[in-house]
Amino acid sequence: MHPSGRQAGQMRPIIIETGFSRHAEGSALIRIGGTEVLCTASVENRVPPFLRGKGSGWVTAEYGMLPRATHARGNREAARGKQSGRTQEIQRLIGRSLRAVTDLKALGELCITLDCDVLNADGGTRCASITGAWVALRLALGKLVANRVLQRMPLTGQVAAVSCGLTSAGAVLDLDYTEDSAALADTNFVLSADNRIVEIQASAEHAPFSEDAFNSLFALARKGAGELFEAQLTAVNTAEQP
Amino acid sequence: MHPSGRQAGQMRPIIIETGFSRHAEGSALIRIGGTEVLCTASVENRVPPFLRGKGSGWVTAEYGMLPRATHARGNREAARGKQSGRTQEIQRLIGRSLRAVTDLKALGELCITLDCDVLNADGGTRCASITGAWVALRLALGKLVANRVLQRMPLTGQVAAVSCGLTSAGAVLDLDYTEDSAALADTNFVLSADNRIVEIQASAEHAPFSEDAFNSLFALARKGAGELFEAQLTAVNTAEQP
Amino acid sequence: MHPSGRQAGQMRPIIIETGFSRHAEGSALIRIGGTEVLCTASVENRVPPFLRGKGSGWVTAEYGMLPRATHARGNREAARGKQSGRTQEIQRLIGRSLRAVTDLKALGELCITLDCDVLNADGGTRCASITGAWVALRLALGKLVANRVLQRMPLTGQVAAVSCGLTSAGAVLDLDYTEDSAALADTNFVLSADNRIVEIQASAEHAPFSEDAFNSLFALARKGAGELFEAQLTAVNTAEQP
Amino acid sequence: MHPSGRQAGQMRPIIIETGFSRHAEGSALIRIGGTEVLCTASVENRVPPFLRGKGSGWVTAEYGMLPRATHARGNREAARGKQSGRTQEIQRLIGRSLRAVTDLKALGELCITLDCDVLNADGGTRCASITGAWVALRLALGKLVANRVLQRMPLTGQVAAVSCGLTSAGAVLDLDYTEDSAALADTNFVLSADNRIVEIQASAEHAPFSEDAFNSLFALARKGAGELFEAQLTAVNTAEQP
Amino acid sequence: MHPSGRQAGQMRPIIIETGFSRHAEGSALIRIGGTEVLCTASVENRVPPFLRGKGSGWVTAEYGMLPRATHARGNREAARGKQSGRTQEIQRLIGRSLRAVTDLKALGELCITLDCDVLNADGGTRCASITGAWVALRLALGKLVANRVLQRMPLTGQVAAVSCGLTSAGAVLDLDYTEDSAALADTNFVLSADNRIVEIQASAEHAPFSEDAFNSLFALARKGAGELFEAQLTAVNTAEQP
Amino acid sequence: MHPSGRQAGQMRPIIIETGFSRHAEGSALIRIGGTEVLCTASVENRVPPFLRGKGSGWVTAEYGMLPRATHARGNREAARGKQSGRTQEIQRLIGRSLRAVTDLKALGELCITLDCDVLNADGGTRCASITGAWVALRLALGKLVANRVLQRMPLTGQVAAVSCGLTSAGAVLDLDYTEDSAALADTNFVLSADNRIVEIQASAEHAPFSEDAFNSLFALARKGAGELFEAQLTAVNTAEQP
Repeated sequence: MHPSGRQAGQMRPIIIETGFSRHAEGSALIRIGGTEVLCTASVENRVPPFLRGKGSGWVTAEYGMLPRATHARGNREAARGKQSGRTQEIQRLIGRSLRAVTDLKALGELCITLDCDVLNADGGTRCASITGAWVALRLALGKLVANRVLQRMPLTGQVAAVSCGLTSAGAVLDLDYTEDSAALADTNFVLSADNRIVEIQASAEHAPFSEDAFNSLFALARKGAGELFEAQLTAVNTAEQP
Repeated sequence: MHPSGRQAGQMRPIIIETGFSRHAEGSALIRIGGTEVLCTASVENRVPPFLRGKGSGWVTAEYGMLPRATHARGNREAARGKQSGRTQEIQRLIGRSLRAVTDLKALGELCITLDCDVLNADGGTRCASITGAWVALRLALGKLVANRVLQRMPLTGQVAAVSCGLTSAGAVLDLDYTEDSAALADTNFVLSADNRIVEIQASAEHAPFSEDAFNSLFALARKGAGELFEAQLTAVNTAEQP
Repeated sequence: MHPSGRQAGQMRPIIIETGFSRHAEGSALIRIGGTEVLCTASVENRVPPFLRGKGSGWVTAEYGMLPRATHARGNREAARGKQSGRTQEIQRLIGRSLRAVTDLKALGELCITLDCDVLNADGGTRCASITGAWVALRLALGKLVANRVLQRMPLTGQVAAVSCGLTSAGAVLDLDYTEDSAALADTNFVLSADNRIVEIQASAEHAPFSEDAFNSLFALARKGAGELFEAQLTAVNTAEQP
Repeated sequence: MHPSGRQAGQMRPIIIETGFSRHAEGSALIRIGGTEVLCTASVENRVPPFLRGKGSGWVTAEYGMLPRATHARGNREAARGKQSGRTQEIQRLIGRSLRAVTDLKALGELCITLDCDVLNADGGTRCASITGAWVALRLALGKLVANRVLQRMPLTGQVAAVSCGLTSAGAVLDLDYTEDSAALADTNFVLSADNRIVEIQASAEHAPFSEDAFNSLFALARKGAGELFEAQLTAVNTAEQP
Repeated sequence: MHPSGRQAGQMRPIIIETGFSRHAEGSALIRIGGTEVLCTASVENRVPPFLRGKGSGWVTAEYGMLPRATHARGNREAARGKQSGRTQEIQRLIGRSLRAVTDLKALGELCITLDCDVLNADGGTRCASITGAWVALRLALGKLVANRVLQRMPLTGQVAAVSCGLTSAGAVLDLDYTEDSAALADTNFVLSADNRIVEIQASAEHAPFSEDAFNSLFALARKGAGELFEAQLTAVNTAEQP
Repeated sequence: MHPSGRQAGQMRPIIIETGFSRHAEGSALIRIGGTEVLCTASVENRVPPFLRGKGSGWVTAEYGMLPRATHARGNREAARGKQSGRTQEIQRLIGRSLRAVTDLKALGELCITLDCDVLNADGGTRCASITGAWVALRLALGKLVANRVLQRMPLTGQVAAVSCGLTSAGAVLDLDYTEDSAALADTNFVLSADNRIVEIQASAEHAPFSEDAFNSLFALARKGAGELFEAQLTAVNTAEQP
């Protein structure tokens, strides 16, 4: 059981709303319980310097949190003049996760930037960002295919992410902020719909944890990811239906 | 007439939704046509160094724009490592405007930060920010009074802002982005509900403009502000009704 | 009456000295009472990226204050590593004001940078900067025309700026630092010699002020600007006479 | 087999030299094949603000790479004016890994900073840093115990890290730079000597990979870590023998 | 002979004007030929952290160049966001030079900041800064003594600086910008009026130079410094005469 | 006599080890007593913008100190986000010193960066950096000549540097950190093997010093440099022998 009474293997409610952003080629406002992230996909006709003239595109991500997305107001990174190490780590993770399911050659010399901005935070923001970013990316690519900018869909898979943690009461799925703060181990699983691994980040909080515990967390993650894959498809289908 | 067909003196639809932010002491998601700004008021038990021990509080503001709030994606200021001159100018304006209707002594040694983050931009974001920030501030102060942290409401007035511009077809109220880009003069009026002036910013775009034109713009602003004052009160009343 | 005994509508003494800077294409050292600003115009054979190949030039401005231009020493912005919001706001204002009276097409692909550095500060530095910058710009353009780099003078007007403020004793013209610190409303009027408006910035300091007060301030500004236009022409004529 | 001919489960030669740094309380120069990292532990009589007066110490880490540690010279981060996202990610990982085996209460109000500077890079620098940092930390703590600054050794375990990767020829242990660049999946395992998990970072490079592959990589990591634990103990014992 | 026709051992005209800065406790506008530097001394009732409570004062310096002090406009350091290495080197030199003739204990817990801002540059700006800064410092200290803030004058000597260079025609005194650009060796001598050395900086420009050449440059410097010491005393006496 | 018992004119032991850096075209790990600096020379096929297309190469230097090279841990410049004035001053000195003995035309359009990173500091790090950088540069250029990238060796001389200081007991050669901290005057002499001057930096610490003292320091420096020139040649010959 979660401290909140939720079952150990139960996800919080998942809502994915598309089209919130008026200008982006694809967008998803994803809500997982009290966490809410606006994910937008922006298509630009350029590639970073290291790819110029190589016939390949790029997918990258940026992550941010509104100052009052959190319980106590945090500093605005733009005002502080730099992104924190945590922010950079998360946006690198989002970028790698989405590139793992994109055929960059098939994208041609386009760059897609996934902006994930947390409007309300209650744990699991990096996972919600990845899950929502896939929807935004999928919708943007869908438009490029529909408009014949691209010959075929460059996505090679579906990716979603979920956090699991070891609490004093055992392994639980989809930690909220309070649970996350108290967890003995904190893990983020980025998985693909064909049952493979995109990224795993597992961290002991105060003391090392056992391989058995890791395996329990992994099993919960598989379950949670299944629900996320479904919610993603529903959101895409709803957005694209004529 | 506006180029879009709207009447010269007609505001775009105004929608103010409160409570969007789960953690802020006060919040307003304000929509003026296609412009959408999330305004939050955060109360902190501290004052800036220059006010320490003086028995007075402070109200300040920060402004930001999500990278894809705009037609083409803009750079993320946190990633660039600094806020633009435009951003700083706007957030200074918001702060001054709200302080002009706050009795800082009555606030005690509290600091209220108004964060105005543009989720979708279609012209007039600084004006929408001020108008929304007043609602967020009013709600946060209302809670402080209700919780007896404050003895009385420190607000001394109601403030709202609207932009007007000189187009080739004459003076118009509440410019959208396309109109703003083509305007010959661009003005922002921050006004109080008791018919006084808080701030005026008027800029010629390509050539100086006449005092008569200025007076027409001012008259339109008074009209638009009236509608905004009403929408603010409705939002506050709805939020506070038992 | 000014607190200092000066009449409400009386400017402080105006002195504009040209040629102080040995290298600049145009320069003016402007003194308005105890305020002293060195304004230089630098001509460069380049335009900013967004204008490349468009057959148009650019006029921009930078503003600074020597650390001990003020009563108490201020931080050096170069040492702090960034320009304050106030500095950026002022230099943006100077640039816009001068562009409003420049035909950028007639300038060809040249960039003119107006550097306004405050050597001594006693209120009204942004207004003195604009007034002095016009002289520096005019002299630099005069040389370009004389040297046949330009076919005709790209200036379309004459611009000057003056501050007015509401004191407890009523509206006064050309505030010095002490007056400015105590003013109830602070306004800057950037006007053209043909009686039009280039920029207006009006700010309530502690409480909103009335439209009547605004109109009194505007009337004083018109008067003060008249004296500045005359001083500008005298300075230019003296500098250019054979 | 490794592309280099090394067996799939064979570590590169491990050499840990202590005392290279003349001033640090503990230091280890660790060489894993062609990778060489200088790890120092610095003890300071202070704690970060969030721990002041809480009777608890802190362990933190910083990571850097000499500009020419790599095949082609990289930019010096101090000259660029910021640490890259990769650097910050690595130093956060090192800090977390060492804190997981330190009893911060037993440390008292001391701060230990682990500096890991890469002198020569040939893959696996973050893992070598963690493994070397444990030795530096252990030696510094040993001195504090010997000098009776601390009553007992605050270390609760032994930690080491090793990278494994999926190459076209299968899973291999301890990737060098060339292998790392070509890997299909890249994993870093931070493990404790009592057979538990401190951190796992697993990333697919171009496409998701299977759970079976992950398990093979984990098994190799356990084997490699065993050799590292032994080398650590030998280094500590040699350094501390009378 | 100088390329300009000036004798090898002849200084350019020296003019030191005091009181240019209205607010500084001491100020000197020094002109050496076409080089012009405004030096101000600001007295503050604080010391840097490393001196707190030690009963000793501090003298420090900051240096800047107006963007158009030079032939071609240079970047504004405040806008670039950092001081160049050259700027930092010069301001460190100025600070060291003045501290070498100040009894910091006799200063009490005061900090004096010497700001040296180049208004027009034609070679030798760092030397002119030191020479002018001594006058500004002397005047500020004179006031502190006159006002009985200090019991006695904390200056222990008189310091001035001059550049000498090796041109193709031999050693010359007080290089202007054109000469400096072509010099084979460039030296700055900071000397005290009692014939001692405060600082020497000697740099070969393209190839090493002989000790004999160095000795010739040193002899010229002694001569030039003599003239500067005289000009300094005249300026101080004029400023202080009743 | 040195405070440590070393003779006034005696250098500390000099050891220059080549090849420590695995990737650099030339490298030298220089130890002068307890000071240890890793110097690498990196050859790149590019020149800085101001030299493009001019048929000339460039030699530049960067300097850094590991945080715990010193007795007490210093801040990491990369983490602070900028290089100190001292660091910049030193790296500019190293670059100038090596360029003074390099024929940049003979180098062709190549850039050589000399990175000098202090691993252990005990005084004289800038001098050790210059001495070691010459060896690294010489070895890198030797390879370019051997590989026929260059037709002839672009070095025009041999350069080394040594510090001397005035202690209460008189002039001494090659100050260690403790001596340096207490010195009355601190000098750095960069000399060429043909008995000429590359750079002299002489600074009074608390009071000006006499020309006689300067001459004694210079004489010691000549002696010390002789030993350094010999050690450099031995290191180069050993590294290059077949």
